[in-house]
Amino acid sequence: MKFLPLLALAALGLTAAARADDGYDLWLRYHPLEKPLAARYAPAATEVVSAAHSATADVTRAELVKGLSGLLAKKVAVGESVHQAGAVLFGTPENSATIKNLNLPLGQLGPEGYLIRSAVVGGKKLTVIAGNSDVGVLYGAYRFLKLIQTHEAIDKLDIASAPKVKLRLLNHWDNLDATIERGYAGSSIFKWWELPEHVSPRMVDYARANASIGINGTVLINVNASSLVLTQEYLQKAAALADTFRPYGIKVYLVARFSAPIEIGGLKTADPLDPQVREWWKHKADEIYHYIPDFGGFLIKANSEGQPGPGDYGRTHAEGANMFAEALAPHGGVVMWRAFVYSHEVPDDRIKQAYNEFKPLDGKFLPNVILQVKNGPLDFQPREPFSALFGATPATNTGLEVQITKEYLGFNTHLVYLGTMWQELLGSDTFAKGPGSTVAKVIDGSMFGYKQTMMAGVSNIGSDRNWSGSIFDQANWYAFGRLAWDPEAKADVIASDWVKQTFTSNPAFLKPVTALMMGSRETAVDYMTPLGLAHQMGTSGHYGPGPWVDSAGRADWNPVYYNRADKSGIGFERGPSGSNAVAQYFPPLSTIWAKPETTPENLLLWFHHVPWNYAMKSGRPLWDELVGRYDQGVANVDAMAAEWLNLKPYVDDERFALTADYLTIQKRDARLWRDASIAYFQSVSGLPLPAGVKKPPHSLGFYEQLEWPYAPGQGAPGRKIKPPPVEVAQ
Amino acid sequence: MKFLPLLALAALGLTAAARADDGYDLWLRYHPLEKPLAARYAPAATEVVSAAHSATADVTRAELVKGLSGLLAKKVAVGESVHQAGAVLFGTPENSATIKNLNLPLGQLGPEGYLIRSAVVGGKKLTVIAGNSDVGVLYGAYRFLKLIQTHEAIDKLDIASAPKVKLRLLNHWDNLDATIERGYAGSSIFKWWELPEHVSPRMVDYARANASIGINGTVLINVNASSLVLTQEYLQKAAALADTFRPYGIKVYLVARFSAPIEIGGLKTADPLDPQVREWWKHKADEIYHYIPDFGGFLIKANSEGQPGPGDYGRTHAEGANMFAEALAPHGGVVMWRAFVYSHEVPDDRIKQAYNEFKPLDGKFLPNVILQVKNGPLDFQPREPFSALFGATPATNTGLEVQITKEYLGFNTHLVYLGTMWQELLGSDTFAKGPGSTVAKVIDGSMFGYKQTMMAGVSNIGSDRNWSGSIFDQANWYAFGRLAWDPEAKADVIASDWVKQTFTSNPAFLKPVTALMMGSRETAVDYMTPLGLAHQMGTSGHYGPGPWVDSAGRADWNPVYYNRADKSGIGFERGPSGSNAVAQYFPPLSTIWAKPETTPENLLLWFHHVPWNYAMKSGRPLWDELVGRYDQGVANVDAMAAEWLNLKPYVDDERFALTADYLTIQKRDARLWRDASIAYFQSVSGLPLPAGVKKPPHSLGFYEQLEWPYAPGQGAPGRKIKPPPVEVAQ
Repeated sequence: MKFLPLLALAALGLTAAARADDGYDLWLRYHPLEKPLAARYAPAATEVVSAAHSATADVTRAELVKGLSGLLAKKVAVGESVHQAGAVLFGTPENSATIKNLNLPLGQLGPEGYLIRSAVVGGKKLTVIAGNSDVGVLYGAYRFLKLIQTHEAIDKLDIASAPKVKLRLLNHWDNLDATIERGYAGSSIFKWWELPEHVSPRMVDYARANASIGINGTVLINVNASSLVLTQEYLQKAAALADTFRPYGIKVYLVARFSAPIEIGGLKTADPLDPQVREWWKHKADEIYHYIPDFGGFLIKANSEGQPGPGDYGRTHAEGANMFAEALAPHGGVVMWRAFVYSHEVPDDRIKQAYNEFKPLDGKFLPNVILQVKNGPLDFQPREPFSALFGATPATNTGLEVQITKEYLGFNTHLVYLGTMWQELLGSDTFAKGPGSTVAKVIDGSMFGYKQTMMAGVSNIGSDRNWSGSIFDQANWYAFGRLAWDPEAKADVIASDWVKQTFTSNPAFLKPVTALMMGSRETAVDYMTPLGLAHQMGTSGHYGPGPWVDSAGRADWNPVYYNRADKSGIGFERGPSGSNAVAQYFPPLSTIWAKPETTPENLLLWFHHVPWNYAMKSGRPLWDELVGRYDQGVANVDAMAAEWLNLKPYVDDERFALTADYLTIQKRDARLWRDASIAYFQSVSGLPLPAGVKKPPHSLGFYEQLEWPYAPGQGAPGRKIKPPPVEVAQ
Repeated sequence: MKFLPLLALAALGLTAAARADDGYDLWLRYHPLEKPLAARYAPAATEVVSAAHSATADVTRAELVKGLSGLLAKKVAVGESVHQAGAVLFGTPENSATIKNLNLPLGQLGPEGYLIRSAVVGGKKLTVIAGNSDVGVLYGAYRFLKLIQTHEAIDKLDIASAPKVKLRLLNHWDNLDATIERGYAGSSIFKWWELPEHVSPRMVDYARANASIGINGTVLINVNASSLVLTQEYLQKAAALADTFRPYGIKVYLVARFSAPIEIGGLKTADPLDPQVREWWKHKADEIYHYIPDFGGFLIKANSEGQPGPGDYGRTHAEGANMFAEALAPHGGVVMWRAFVYSHEVPDDRIKQAYNEFKPLDGKFLPNVILQVKNGPLDFQPREPFSALFGATPATNTGLEVQITKEYLGFNTHLVYLGTMWQELLGSDTFAKGPGSTVAKVIDGSMFGYKQTMMAGVSNIGSDRNWSGSIFDQANWYAFGRLAWDPEAKADVIASDWVKQTFTSNPAFLKPVTALMMGSRETAVDYMTPLGLAHQMGTSGHYGPGPWVDSAGRADWNPVYYNRADKSGIGFERGPSGSNAVAQYFPPLSTIWAKPETTPENLLLWFHHVPWNYAMKSGRPLWDELVGRYDQGVANVDAMAAEWLNLKPYVDDERFALTADYLTIQKRDARLWRDASIAYFQSVSGLPLPAGVKKPPHSLGFYEQLEWPYAPGQGAPGRKIKPPPVEVAQ
């Protein structure tokens, strides 16, 4: 007689454990620690104490109880005052006399910071989590739980932390029909159809996850959204979400479509200098704040990719943005104005356009306007230099937009950790005020004393059970939150924390997985767009390779526009002999990047058109180096996949299999990128493959025919708009 | 000091219980029985015994262990031979000597039936689950578990059951881009993008749920699907699903687009009499069976709503269908040919068309063709008479298509149990061979000795955690399976079983909820389309009311086409003085339905145009009766919602809240239907409202302006097709 203990256990209600491994719990797993560890922590977490009873204090209490009870596998008591040693006391000086009497140095923490300190009160050792607001305390509670999740000591704590960036936002590109533009994790988690009557319990878990990493705002819909979201019906729906998110310190923002006064207001114009239009927006703002008293503000994409904007009326971006700013200012709202614009006419070099449009407007925006600038001057490529706008607008609040969803980085099926990419960006020196003028210091406001600071990430969240479409894409959501809180945080520390919270602290797993994550972005760059190439993706869906594509609607949508490969060489000349985009940067970058010899090789083809036999630092000619990088990318993905297979003993079956299967897809795709790219560039260069290099298995014609007609993420934002009904006399 | 025991328990890993209440487990919950019950069953389920080790036997064993261990909250042993009293022995005479020696009456069970019998073997009392095939045994295992779930006695069992219908299929209207036409439960559960490399674990739970109710086939994609699904790439993806479903007795079917030989075959025609076309389909069938050896066959929508078909080449439906049948026959596959056709020209009465087209073709189809007929002659309305084709095609295998997803019945947000609707249909007497010639007897083949029998349900399954978009919509999936197994099963028994398996057997909950379900369809008919009205939904999404709509692309898409309301009266005259559709039915129906006086009032306006003052059986004039029905519908929904609130103590919070919130939406919508319909029909009839009836709160103009631009379920099936790449000489 044999037993099937695992199956039987599963049937006994412990399927919980198996099912939890679908990744739904993200980094907030709170699974029981091993017994010796739990025994070590238990005396320092005997009870959760607070006399506060605001909505935020209530969720803080619930999270501490849930987390501690889970991690320590015991019931944790709850009370209003300290009854025993090992209490975890949370609160503000306003709602806790004990905390007030401790005279903690809360002055420097601002409204959202926290302090965690070991203290002795009335002879009892306890841990105090304090802040100037309930939300600051909530952030502290998540930090305290993380200390235990990551096996840090908690007996002599003295931690103070405050966010360096004021607005830390997710930008959802979710449409009202629940499709998501560039979404690879299912459909939208926001179920507009059933709001406001039903708010899914998932909305609470969404808020918990965001609060746990310091995200304090969410733009619910696509920058290309319909005006319908500003109608009364949809405002009531948005209000139901705002009510749910509020206890977690998360504000709701909406997208304002520039033409809304025409589409839903019945006006004949949307001219920002028209008094009726300005009045309409003021009333609209009043209406929004009626439903959502702490509404965050508007995100606006204007005069970009076909969206309407002030340019339609001969007005500047500043005139457009300021109209919204005036409407929101009385309520404390902000306007985030996207700098991702490029005109109807194709300029000599598209990447220069945002700078050319916005630099002259510096100082012309109202104080509650934030210019929202993408990390690079093009469009979320695997590698770009930082946007020249960073540092160039000292008199305009300038915020950063990064893309968490991997539109150009293999969707959810490629394992690419973006922490390193963002660290590279934030650590880049703009030299705006001499050495040390990093993008991080622009963004956090310290460089120019911005009134508003902001970092936004285009969400990778969807209805998939694991939220992000893959387990490792959860790390990018996590890393975004951590870097928005502290733009100088380190990608390897963040990766390591995430692995510990999400999987295990066992070094046999932690070390190789952290290493795998840290190398993954460079690997993707190698097999997709090495040496400074960019935008080489096929136009249908941005998934597979398409370096040959020259037929897209406008010149600067074509990969050939960016690679400029011809018989003489490859790359886009942006030095003084070319578009001179380098001149948009501060010296010495404008000089260093002006010449191929001084340009870093990982940006070489971004800034320069160089001959195929250009001598690289390795001693190899460019052609050999390029081919070598593709091969290196493929080899690295193979190594990642092999490494993951070794780690099976440390992972539950479901997350193991998902990741292993996706790495199989990534291996296939890396080869395809390598083969197709080499086939095309060889057809242009006419050069033989370097010795020992494998010939692509198919002809160029084969690769050119590939399509991905059902690639995800192509949700369409638009629908015909008809004004909502108005009552007609009976 | 107070405790929060619930929260603490939740944190202690028992969040399982809370989370399970998201409805994911459907009717396969296996939560522990109350102790006295468990004690009663435990002696009769001590071990699970079988020497069989096929893939199907393995999943049978796993399900019994999971189910029994869960229900009885104990480890259930597993073995190859009986070791103790109370064993549950499963198998076939081929793989179990014990079962063979019992000489069970398996002869009448066919390949999928099962027998469950209490027996004594070697002095030990045991339960035998036997069948002629492993899949039959699997069905028996689910039945055995249901006995315990529903608290039936299991000590003296002698149950034999075999399906009356051979092919019991789900039709998914899922598109390759993961949208679902008429889907209200999220996006598709089939993730084509990541197949075949990754098969989601959810696919196993999908197969389990279907097998548990006897469903044995699934059409993976939309009847309006792209030909791309027939390319090698997609066949490999479909094969990965087929491999996953196979152990559960579920075959995969695909949609064949008639024009595929042109679109992906490079031919110039799709003429079914063209030898090249016939050859192409034969090769395609061979290719499919190479990847999926037990492929079920094709579902085809031809010459309907713009789809290509044999009519494009002057050929008949039979000539079209037989071409596919010949290609599939050598492999044992079937063709399901949809009878839902209506021509480009608008006929005098659209509902007559399917009969007119297919009746003359009776006997002209090959034996492996099944004509797939929708329940009614129109299109899945809240109430229609049965289609006149049932009984009219004795020489053509005729199968039934019902719609599980509630396209015309309030989507997922209205609680409407469809078991009663299908029972009404299946119990309808066609009189084809005199009294007793029910639709059920046509469908199960007993009336005409069909070679193939089939019942298909358009799936309501999506990526939502609860699968069907609401908890109560799970009951419709369940009821479909039960009725496909036995078309004479009773809707109230099915509802009661479902409630017991899904919620509880507690009569305080079971009785009111079963009653609520049993009345729910009639309630929806009352507030949407009472007295035989049909197709009164607004054209944008089929959600809200639109009895005034007269502007749709063709006359017979318009509600006014169907209600024919004018100053003189309301209803579509289909008696001899009208379209004479009644003549398509056998006598005496053709006579009974020919006159208003003998037509049942619930079909009155379907068959007759009658004056507003027509005297109803109640004594009220038609106008008063019509208004009264709308009011009754609203009152019934209010009562349903109130009843549900009373039941809070018996339901977990999550399923309670979801259902309560949706009933709130249904209350709102029922009023809207009532108000808008009364406002419109009053504008036509010019009559005052009956005494005491509430005036609609808005003018007709208000209702006419309502739109639902983002109503779900409008996924678009089509994408531009480009043939897949072929190798070009290097």
